[in-house]
Amino acid sequence: MKELSVNHLLGIKYITKEDIQLIFETADHFKEVINRPIKKVPSLRDITIANLFFENSTRTRLSFELAEKRLSADVINFSAASSSVKKGETLIDTVNNILSMKVDMVVMRHPNPGAGVFLSKHINSSIINAGDGAHEHPTQALLDCFSIREKLGKVAGKKVVIVGDILHSRVALSNIFALQKLGAKVKVCGPKTLIPKYIEKLGVEVEGNLIKALEWCDVANMLRVQNERMDISYFPTTREYAQQFGLTKKILDSLNKEIVVMHPGPINRGVEITSDVADSKQAIILDQVQNGVAIRMAVIYLLASKIKHHED
Amino acid sequence: MKELSVNHLLGIKYITKEDIQLIFETADHFKEVINRPIKKVPSLRDITIANLFFENSTRTRLSFELAEKRLSADVINFSAASSSVKKGETLIDTVNNILSMKVDMVVMRHPNPGAGVFLSKHINSSIINAGDGAHEHPTQALLDCFSIREKLGKVAGKKVVIVGDILHSRVALSNIFALQKLGAKVKVCGPKTLIPKYIEKLGVEVEGNLIKALEWCDVANMLRVQNERMDISYFPTTREYAQQFGLTKKILDSLNKEIVVMHPGPINRGVEITSDVADSKQAIILDQVQNGVAIRMAVIYLLASKIKHHED
Amino acid sequence: MKELSVNHLLGIKYITKEDIQLIFETADHFKEVINRPIKKVPSLRDITIANLFFENSTRTRLSFELAEKRLSADVINFSAASSSVKKGETLIDTVNNILSMKVDMVVMRHPNPGAGVFLSKHINSSIINAGDGAHEHPTQALLDCFSIREKLGKVAGKKVVIVGDILHSRVALSNIFALQKLGAKVKVCGPKTLIPKYIEKLGVEVEGNLIKALEWCDVANMLRVQNERMDISYFPTTREYAQQFGLTKKILDSLNKEIVVMHPGPINRGVEITSDVADSKQAIILDQVQNGVAIRMAVIYLLASKIKHHED
Repeated sequence: MKELSVNHLLGIKYITKEDIQLIFETADHFKEVINRPIKKVPSLRDITIANLFFENSTRTRLSFELAEKRLSADVINFSAASSSVKKGETLIDTVNNILSMKVDMVVMRHPNPGAGVFLSKHINSSIINAGDGAHEHPTQALLDCFSIREKLGKVAGKKVVIVGDILHSRVALSNIFALQKLGAKVKVCGPKTLIPKYIEKLGVEVEGNLIKALEWCDVANMLRVQNERMDISYFPTTREYAQQFGLTKKILDSLNKEIVVMHPGPINRGVEITSDVADSKQAIILDQVQNGVAIRMAVIYLLASKIKHHED
Repeated sequence: MKELSVNHLLGIKYITKEDIQLIFETADHFKEVINRPIKKVPSLRDITIANLFFENSTRTRLSFELAEKRLSADVINFSAASSSVKKGETLIDTVNNILSMKVDMVVMRHPNPGAGVFLSKHINSSIINAGDGAHEHPTQALLDCFSIREKLGKVAGKKVVIVGDILHSRVALSNIFALQKLGAKVKVCGPKTLIPKYIEKLGVEVEGNLIKALEWCDVANMLRVQNERMDISYFPTTREYAQQFGLTKKILDSLNKEIVVMHPGPINRGVEITSDVADSKQAIILDQVQNGVAIRMAVIYLLASKIKHHED
Repeated sequence: MKELSVNHLLGIKYITKEDIQLIFETADHFKEVINRPIKKVPSLRDITIANLFFENSTRTRLSFELAEKRLSADVINFSAASSSVKKGETLIDTVNNILSMKVDMVVMRHPNPGAGVFLSKHINSSIINAGDGAHEHPTQALLDCFSIREKLGKVAGKKVVIVGDILHSRVALSNIFALQKLGAKVKVCGPKTLIPKYIEKLGVEVEGNLIKALEWCDVANMLRVQNERMDISYFPTTREYAQQFGLTKKILDSLNKEIVVMHPGPINRGVEITSDVADSKQAIILDQVQNGVAIRMAVIYLLASKIKHHED
């Protein structure tokens, strides 16, 4: 049986093209499962998973929780608000405590970039990074590429533009790594102040003009404007952002082809994309959400297989 | 097999007398189930239910969660405090996202009257209204009427007075609809400032004097004083409210019959009712709570049957 | 079959030596269970447990929740933050409401000493005290003694010093009761302002000097400095506390024997114990955490057996 080259999913940077393909094939199966009347499999009855969210997140946490429950794993949730983190405990101590309770896998969202990588060097358990600061959000990139593959047949050779706040976006970085490993061409488009300087070193072209970027691409991934991470030093106002980088139906219809529109959610309707774009047939936003559960089931299942194999 | 006339439970206003009777017959069965040593049935193993609480609620959420678990459904909880609602997402987008994860049913509490009705026009999933502002709280009315039926044999012909803040009460409105559909006679009693003007159009008489109201009735449903929704413009003080509309053991014993005392909880002891009333044999407050689980199991089960029937 | 002498676990004060031994023998079995690949038993499929936490707690709540799930019980969680407690409801009403939903057992943490004892006189259900103010935390004491027994073969005759803030510590009080019932000798060590006056009436000696205390003991249980419960009237600064009562590797190595080091967590590294002590082989801190799940499974299982026996 094929297995992942890694024991953790810390970032797309750390996995191979073959890992991604194995995850996709496994997710194909689970997507079929969750569309059956009985949406569950008993595969992971013997696995306990802790969801550690040191940062609020609704959709990612719910998606992981559903993935875990549909694999029949036992699930415990831990959120920073009620945590001993506030009592001055170190991250390693917190996680080691939870693992001592015989938890097999940790899904962690943390505000600090590299928190998962750091942890993986100190603990004996599988870690899935559910977002670490502005660093990586690997399952989001996997579900995005899986959704492109589903819509366009393959990812290789496709042209994808990522639009918006690239600087603060773990979604952008993980997508760039995943798209490149799968053979897609990637450009980014957004305000200069929100494009990191290292972007060209990654082999990614910058296109400042939204129309030109859209004319070039097959797929536009419209990132969320994160008001909570922005201030005046980056961009004047949300309204001005929308005027320069917002995708309207008029723009979409003016292109001489049908591009695919993606958004990681939650959408600010009228900012990144207008409502008619969000609700158009070209948008695959809700497919992304559905695929998120299948992708997370696949990642959890494949990492758990390695744990079990190790135990045998 | 009999089935409900609706695909959602949005309010008592939208269901028929036959729907209510079917829910009661089904709840009779589930009440028997939850009093067995093994309180669970495997009926809804294939159903995923999301509890979306955009307003805090302990008892209603716990009651729904227990009902869902005793039907063996998979349950995910979502509360506004940790939600993307704060990130500016629309209600439809939030719910559509959750449904894209293959959730079959949504139990929703929302501060806005009509939130459930609005949603039901835009989404493909069963919705149960667990309270929408001052509008309806249908499962509360069902469990109240079920408790009257259990205590007095039937609801038809019984005289029920609802005492307290009718203006802000979804419990009052849903009870009025349910009691009338089942053939009971309804009066309301409370401070004039807390009786809505439309009440007489509903065929409900207003009685300003508590003693007279109690002398007339078979059942008194003593609503909770919601300090959080009241201010001086409605009523001077809680103490004065208690003096005019609070039910004491002395009053209860002065009546020339044994009336049934109900309260939707949580009780402000010494305000709506005194402790000796709350703990008396005439009070069926804890029966109401127990029946709440059976009623919610029945509603969820019957709505799920329609989903499954539709799938076949 | 042997059974507990009590229907609740309200404190170590209320149980016998034989109860403790029965809990340990049962925990031996469950410790073996949670170290199997399949960490669950179907024993309590018919039991519903409510975790009522009127005070925040991460590790204790997670430990109980895992214990409950590994016994296959149905679990509902209730935290004060979202509770009707804020709406003025009494504790008895809140708990009676939850019990009316056919909940078999209540695990409760409450800020008021004696909250569990008070409740047990008014309700018909098993109560497990998960910490009541500065009074008792019985499962912590049981897991501590179980860990000593595991490490040293037995508890009887062993010398245990409890170091730190004895005054505010429910962990200390429960440990003293448990250790004495099992035949250990107990001393306490800490700042005079943090040693309660009644301590000598319990038959516990006070030793003001850390080195002398350590030279005497077989086991040192280093209590957490609870910054949230301390102020200048008790002790000058954390730094000065660490200098007088903090355990360093240098001190540990200077003793002419290998003592066992315990800590109930969360650790303030560098305050109660230094990092090299926490991570040394003499520290059994993570064993304590693991044993916590087994002990809680045992307590829940034994109390549930009494409920079932009563039903038969």
